[in-house]
Amino acid sequence: MENTNSAVTACVVVIGNEILSGRTKDQNISYIGKRCDELGIILQESRIIPDLEQVIINTVDACRKKFDYVFTTGGIGPTHDDITTAAIAKLFHLVVERNKQAEKVMMEYYGPDRLNASRLKMADIPSGAELIDNPVSAAPGFQIENVFVLPGVPLIMQAMFEGITDRLTGGDPVLTASIITGLTEGELAEGLGVLQEKFPEVSIGSYPFFRHGKLGVNLVMRTTDADKLDELTDNMKSLIIRLKGKIISTA
Amino acid sequence: MENTNSAVTACVVVIGNEILSGRTKDQNISYIGKRCDELGIILQESRIIPDLEQVIINTVDACRKKFDYVFTTGGIGPTHDDITTAAIAKLFHLVVERNKQAEKVMMEYYGPDRLNASRLKMADIPSGAELIDNPVSAAPGFQIENVFVLPGVPLIMQAMFEGITDRLTGGDPVLTASIITGLTEGELAEGLGVLQEKFPEVSIGSYPFFRHGKLGVNLVMRTTDADKLDELTDNMKSLIIRLKGKIISTA
Repeated sequence: MENTNSAVTACVVVIGNEILSGRTKDQNISYIGKRCDELGIILQESRIIPDLEQVIINTVDACRKKFDYVFTTGGIGPTHDDITTAAIAKLFHLVVERNKQAEKVMMEYYGPDRLNASRLKMADIPSGAELIDNPVSAAPGFQIENVFVLPGVPLIMQAMFEGITDRLTGGDPVLTASIITGLTEGELAEGLGVLQEKFPEVSIGSYPFFRHGKLGVNLVMRTTDADKLDELTDNMKSLIIRLKGKIISTA
Repeated sequence: MENTNSAVTACVVVIGNEILSGRTKDQNISYIGKRCDELGIILQESRIIPDLEQVIINTVDACRKKFDYVFTTGGIGPTHDDITTAAIAKLFHLVVERNKQAEKVMMEYYGPDRLNASRLKMADIPSGAELIDNPVSAAPGFQIENVFVLPGVPLIMQAMFEGITDRLTGGDPVLTASIITGLTEGELAEGLGVLQEKFPEVSIGSYPFFRHGKLGVNLVMRTTDADKLDELTDNMKSLIIRLKGKIISTA
């Protein structure tokens, strides 16, 4: 289901050494993943890459050709390690220039005293790019073709993402149901395989976890078909009861 | 520094629709990232991909040619959506066959009554692969050339990763220091740029955050040179004080 040709696909490219080094945990992939579901867009891949110009260029170039939408996060601030804007401009053979609209909103936000040269760098945008408004802290992101360049700070990224959803065209929303059970994958596997064959239009995921010394499984069903989702959920509950398992929670 | 030719590099490939959909937050990239630092290995990239055979094959193939080590997580359990083992075997043109050693440890762990056909699937390993012991729940991972195939459950993955560190050869450990300040990036940017030029052997990262309605920055310095790290840390503190900023914490 998730790899049909008609599906609208997306990729998140997270730019930042800090995420790779493990010191900061990314929160943007999960946010964009959830919103893509609701928008009927399949988030098909995510990549986390360092703040290196050529890596940014190569990665975004590969992804923009492969997916309908590419969302980058990180590297558009005022410091020396913020090189995403320059890299994306280079990829599209555009010059980076002071954007009058960006300068205006930043002047309103910071005032002339606090709008120093470093902050003004955030008003430098690839020529011809469409701005993405920042309702939190003024400095905008931008869109070039199918590439949306967003900041790394999650709260700001989320606010800006909500401002671009009307530029995105998805299919039917992906509906999800999940059941958490104390059964193990080894106990469930055979029955799950049977249900997956019976419901080919639903993608059944089985995600084991290990908490407080006990294994359990989160069963996740994803589809655009509401009736099939309900029917499979009932079948899934029956399977768990038949295996003498406990339904810990449903969502 | 992080892209010199002599550096030992690695890539994590996270396999699982559940991570992409945003329902489960990955914990494995950050764990492997931290351990790579300590082992002197640069985690250069991470990719999160769905449970689709051809995507797994293409991604791991691209990454194993590009990086010294590839660590995959997820998709080696007993259920229908666990297709990593088969995909990796296909990539290396190997058959998947019952591994006697894997079967033995799983028999010891589960006992003959609980070792059903689904669980035995986890003893099916690409021919000639080197096993990776699982001290938590018996079912092993495996290594083929520079590709290490690990499970997705974080606690199990971590225990298994610790068992393969003697197969990895890194360079000097990457040392890190960080300072969290209430200054903003716009205030710090100019001074940071000067320090980065003065200390080319240290990678200075500036990571803004937004908490309780206030912006702040986490400054992270990474290098293999302990003396330079100390010297730069002192310089960084002086910069913050000069800008009338507050040092919230150091690590």
